[in-house]
Amino acid sequence: MRTVSLAGWDDQVRTLPTTVYAPPPPRRRIVVIAVVLLMALLGTLLVSHHKGDITSMHRHWNVPARGSTIQYNDTYPLTEPQEHEDYTSYRIALITDQDKASKTEEGKSWESVMYKGELRQHRDGRYSFLQDPTPVVLSTTYNAKGRGAELSELQVFNGKLYTADDRTGIIYEVLGTRLVPRFILSDGSGNREKGFKIEWMTVKDNHLWIGGIGKDWTTAEGEFVNADPKWIKIVSPSGSVRHVDWRPAYHAVQQAAGIPDIGYLWHEAVAWSRDLLRWVFLPRRESSERYDETMDERRGTNLLITADVSFSDIHVSRIGEADPERGFSSFKIIPNSGGMHLLAVKSREVEGQLSSYITVLDAHNAQVILKDQKIADNKVEGVEFV
Amino acid sequence: MRTVSLAGWDDQVRTLPTTVYAPPPPRRRIVVIAVVLLMALLGTLLVSHHKGDITSMHRHWNVPARGSTIQYNDTYPLTEPQEHEDYTSYRIALITDQDKASKTEEGKSWESVMYKGELRQHRDGRYSFLQDPTPVVLSTTYNAKGRGAELSELQVFNGKLYTADDRTGIIYEVLGTRLVPRFILSDGSGNREKGFKIEWMTVKDNHLWIGGIGKDWTTAEGEFVNADPKWIKIVSPSGSVRHVDWRPAYHAVQQAAGIPDIGYLWHEAVAWSRDLLRWVFLPRRESSERYDETMDERRGTNLLITADVSFSDIHVSRIGEADPERGFSSFKIIPNSGGMHLLAVKSREVEGQLSSYITVLDAHNAQVILKDQKIADNKVEGVEFV
Repeated sequence: MRTVSLAGWDDQVRTLPTTVYAPPPPRRRIVVIAVVLLMALLGTLLVSHHKGDITSMHRHWNVPARGSTIQYNDTYPLTEPQEHEDYTSYRIALITDQDKASKTEEGKSWESVMYKGELRQHRDGRYSFLQDPTPVVLSTTYNAKGRGAELSELQVFNGKLYTADDRTGIIYEVLGTRLVPRFILSDGSGNREKGFKIEWMTVKDNHLWIGGIGKDWTTAEGEFVNADPKWIKIVSPSGSVRHVDWRPAYHAVQQAAGIPDIGYLWHEAVAWSRDLLRWVFLPRRESSERYDETMDERRGTNLLITADVSFSDIHVSRIGEADPERGFSSFKIIPNSGGMHLLAVKSREVEGQLSSYITVLDAHNAQVILKDQKIADNKVEGVEFV
Repeated sequence: MRTVSLAGWDDQVRTLPTTVYAPPPPRRRIVVIAVVLLMALLGTLLVSHHKGDITSMHRHWNVPARGSTIQYNDTYPLTEPQEHEDYTSYRIALITDQDKASKTEEGKSWESVMYKGELRQHRDGRYSFLQDPTPVVLSTTYNAKGRGAELSELQVFNGKLYTADDRTGIIYEVLGTRLVPRFILSDGSGNREKGFKIEWMTVKDNHLWIGGIGKDWTTAEGEFVNADPKWIKIVSPSGSVRHVDWRPAYHAVQQAAGIPDIGYLWHEAVAWSRDLLRWVFLPRRESSERYDETMDERRGTNLLITADVSFSDIHVSRIGEADPERGFSSFKIIPNSGGMHLLAVKSREVEGQLSSYITVLDAHNAQVILKDQKIADNKVEGVEFV
């Protein structure tokens, strides 16, 4: 048996002063009490000032008392917008879901292309988008059954940029060009072996809300399999995950849009508006008939739906021309637009041919501000102000 | 534009009674006050009783106020021990890390074998282990770079059974024979693209503490690469993850064991003892020389190290005969032993040949109670009371 002491690690804890106290003559008691109170106050301030250091020393050995002290970082966008004479400029990132093509040739990693660019918010009310010439490639070795990095959303949350894989249910933090795994979401109520098919993310009440397609999972011919894609996940700033059955919300939206229960809305673009205090939905597909894999490719819609927090007041409108081959895959609310202007992405996926477009919409009067502008011959599924 | 109302979902919220109040004559005031106070008390009890329902209705729309109300479930073991005349019987599970052999033939899933059995705690102080005849196979499609389900620990936490993959850094909940992904841990300080090489898990202060090998990562010839395996992760009952640099703790343990800095301890079996209020380490390997991949196979050790919470008081002893080809890969503290008896697993991995053994140790007097009993020609890396 041997015993060894670790010296020094807690010295700083012991340096808080201790004093020996002898009672003073009665007439000076009030002065002494005042001095003691003052010292106690100073001591308290000293301790609270050093609390950070003491906590960080203790954390090697004990669970520090965090949780209640978590500060939400609401920096948004991550890059300061640039003010010019005629316009304000925002940095934009766009993420692709390349489906099976995300697998690299040597078969050991999976990739997604990230496009970047600049959104100009002109003083006269127009918008324009300038794409950077060279996209960035994000890569990971994570996969499930040989599928991975099928990234379907981009979202800033708590001062960090996240992206989500609709195959593995993994949410990555995007650090430069690196994908750092942060959360892994089990499908449905949270007890499935497979990952959640993530299609949208948004921030509400400083929590990250994560959703899927919002319709029942069916076979290619439309036979019901399960309602797993109607669950959503809510991640707190400390990283805890909750699984919430959102069937009532999705059903209310579908009913409001006048779509019979046999039909469906397919969601990939959902966001909470802090300005409007309403949910905003730009469905990708709309169908009054039951699901069919091939028919689905040409069921793009121009529906714009907003709902209050209790889904008791739902507004449905149509925005721009419907192009059955193009559906919304993501959008974000444009800063400094009072929650009215949406930067949206549409993708086209017909007979294996892919292309994507960026557009700006005015949710208030249901008008198109910036017409479809082609981004890539690739399926873009996420857009965010970065 | 159309507006649709969602009727009924919040009816139950409105059914809490409201009453109109008219002032009573003065002489009955005290009685009335008493009655009002009583009703207020009943009302409060009623609301708190119905709180669960109301919360579950609201949670579709808003973030429920949880977090502060999380109750830790400290059921342990998960199966009630069986009392017999001569002994108490506990259900035991053992998990294997099959390394590359975990990949199934068709290459789309990864498997681990789970052995089960019964540990008998005899009244006369002996222990015996009876293995179930047929093991269970756990399977997942998750992998990174073609490696997955290399499960290296089993741990009950918050009333659930978890296992951890030392390749992907994924922690799964074991639900029957299903592996449900729950957490994904990034290596080192938490900003690496690759998963944490998890080797041990334990519960301390109702948190799940997760560690790696506790030595620097080096090349096969022992050249320093990084200190990532010296970080640990702490998961709260709500599922938040913290990354803690545990270098001071590992270094203190290595110093206490008298091992020079050029040498190393390789950890796979670490636990916090609630009974002793001490950390317990059964290192797998011990070396006073620098790491060498081939030499390492024969550096098994019989060290038993315990440390107080601040790692300022560390005890080192040796337990049983050292077999350089066998090293501890996991252990758990046996219930109702005052924290003194350890159910441990040793594995042997020499020139590609694998075998594993179960043993029971007395940490107090450093004696072996149940000698090595062979479990399988497989590498068992986790043991738990289930």
